[in-house]
Amino acid sequence: MEFDVDQAMAVLTRTPSVLREMLSGLPPEWTEATEGPDTWSPYVVVGHLIHGERTDWIPRAQIILAQGASRQFTPYDRFAQLRESEGKSLANLLDEFAALRAANLATLRGWRLDDATLSLQGEHPAFGAVTLRQLLATWVAHDLGHIVQIARVMAKQYREAIGPWRAYLSVMER
Amino acid sequence: MEFDVDQAMAVLTRTPSVLREMLSGLPPEWTEATEGPDTWSPYVVVGHLIHGERTDWIPRAQIILAQGASRQFTPYDRFAQLRESEGKSLANLLDEFAALRAANLATLRGWRLDDATLSLQGEHPAFGAVTLRQLLATWVAHDLGHIVQIARVMAKQYREAIGPWRAYLSVMER
Repeated sequence: MEFDVDQAMAVLTRTPSVLREMLSGLPPEWTEATEGPDTWSPYVVVGHLIHGERTDWIPRAQIILAQGASRQFTPYDRFAQLRESEGKSLANLLDEFAALRAANLATLRGWRLDDATLSLQGEHPAFGAVTLRQLLATWVAHDLGHIVQIARVMAKQYREAIGPWRAYLSVMER
Repeated sequence: MEFDVDQAMAVLTRTPSVLREMLSGLPPEWTEATEGPDTWSPYVVVGHLIHGERTDWIPRAQIILAQGASRQFTPYDRFAQLRESEGKSLANLLDEFAALRAANLATLRGWRLDDATLSLQGEHPAFGAVTLRQLLATWVAHDLGHIVQIARVMAKQYREAIGPWRAYLSVMER
């Protein structure tokens, strides 16, 4: 599937409400569950998505659009949420994510990106040259990957409880 | 995590609205996408979940609760949705699933299941003896596994579009 701004925005717009439906008001046995030591709970994932809204997708797009002398992205801190979520409730984080995402999508919409602009490049600290199109596609896939993760973490809490059905549910082994 | 009816219902109740937020009004490029030949699109998955509401979880629980002479479950048709969804829009299927799920959860709530009842057994066509507790836990995990699947199928549509970021997004390889 080719990248298309409208199709991408259709997914990006929905993520805050998908997370709200999945997690809002859910008992902490689900929202604080993990896949083992050093793996993330749904609560931690929401904090990670917030950090991405603040520092990753739109700020990197701005670096590309500016086409300045240095187009190098700031490296992304994958663990920032462990500090930044401190003391915040999940309800709080879900609201914060929704507000940041809405503002970022308003910014994106305002750019009215055309094909030529989507082909502009920035410099990723590990990969080197990447296009705005690739950055925005990754924003979408990153959302979906974390929805996968949240549902998988929750499913695995019943790995023992489902008994012999474990043989049929491949999600338990991922 | 031990199985608990209230915690299970907290997830089961949310699934129809999670699917609605993920899929309702989304362009067909997303909802009809698959992972390749003989794999399911989000549209097909919703039909599969509907068939489960009609023929699997609550009907099997009723077989267990009846404790009749034969407690064998009817084998589950994993492909029924390919016939039964025919001619129905996704919006249609999302409504149908929500209505069936609500009715099934009302039935479940009405049973006021205690520990002894949750330990009653039925006979699975492949596994033999299974408890009502295991059946209900599987209902939850099955929902979550299909949410994983829908988000994964969608993410994979951008496998090429994300360029070098593919190295960071493990969802693309699952």
